[in-house]
Amino acid sequence: MISFNIILFDGFETLDVFGTAEVIGNLPSLYELGYYSLNGGIAESSQKAKVHAMPFSDIDASGVLLIPGGMGARSLVNDENFIEQLKILSEKASYVLTVCTGSVLVAKTGLLNGLKATTYKMGFEWASSNGPQVNWIKKARWVKDGKYYTSSGVSAGIDMSLGFVGDLHGIETVQTITKDIEYVWNPNPENDPFAVE
Amino acid sequence: MISFNIILFDGFETLDVFGTAEVIGNLPSLYELGYYSLNGGIAESSQKAKVHAMPFSDIDASGVLLIPGGMGARSLVNDENFIEQLKILSEKASYVLTVCTGSVLVAKTGLLNGLKATTYKMGFEWASSNGPQVNWIKKARWVKDGKYYTSSGVSAGIDMSLGFVGDLHGIETVQTITKDIEYVWNPNPENDPFAVE
Repeated sequence: MISFNIILFDGFETLDVFGTAEVIGNLPSLYELGYYSLNGGIAESSQKAKVHAMPFSDIDASGVLLIPGGMGARSLVNDENFIEQLKILSEKASYVLTVCTGSVLVAKTGLLNGLKATTYKMGFEWASSNGPQVNWIKKARWVKDGKYYTSSGVSAGIDMSLGFVGDLHGIETVQTITKDIEYVWNPNPENDPFAVE
Repeated sequence: MISFNIILFDGFETLDVFGTAEVIGNLPSLYELGYYSLNGGIAESSQKAKVHAMPFSDIDASGVLLIPGGMGARSLVNDENFIEQLKILSEKASYVLTVCTGSVLVAKTGLLNGLKATTYKMGFEWASSNGPQVNWIKKARWVKDGKYYTSSGVSAGIDMSLGFVGDLHGIETVQTITKDIEYVWNPNPENDPFAVE
């Protein structure tokens, strides 16, 4: 069983978290989902969902890490302690998945330096200022570089998560999930209908 | 400000709730989101998300009601008290939106009798046994009949919610949301790629 560790913070974007949670949660024999915040307690999303989180100290850090974005990321990127803890967790993780501006939080750790990554369409200027050494890809539904999967805005995280599942467990596993959750998957990470030329 | 009341219960399907919460949560000047369970407290989804809920007694029942599905619905459909409370809330609501097997919970109240509705693809036999007087539509991404919007499985709830927003607030509002959450909307409720002939 692989720990799938979902990071929460106040002002996280609801679907950044729960799109991926839905996908990975459909593989209960492979992954154990857990929700964590820096100190544990209740994390409230920008869409008013109050979700119970365990503290970072409880994380099995060898698992997979998911980092969402959201308005809360705008201040967290300047929280040195959070970024340092996120760096430690990201280094230990087998895979790191980010959605939307969650990519910028990981960029801020420096671990994406020299790697390709993507983020929220309207966030590239902010992303570049916080991760100037990252090779930001503007036209991408998601980007894989090494153990890092980064996706563009919100819903793109669902496509990325299914891509992650396909890479690790095969396309038939993806098809079982998409049929069950009645989701039309965009299987091509370069097919980005929201890219701005 | 319209109350948008989201019903939770143990074993709710994560994306049934949070796909719609993401869509409606992008209209904070129009809707106030609240999460409720019969007695309040923590409701845990099938994907291990523990979400804080207020009790039904705190609901502004004149608002919009969202009822998700999930494994928890399989037992709740036989919980007479829950179904009675759901009937009272649904009668008072300005609109009732259901996702997946959430449709069956409302069908059980009798309020969908004689109306068209849809549900999860693999749930029609169960739906018919609990709502024999409902006109179940097997090929539909979602169905609107009067104040009732019912959708098929999980992800279909996102398309339905955007359809609801389009009906009430216009297509430009939908386009603003889909651009922001980078979601490819299926705007045609009759375009159902998961229908089984």
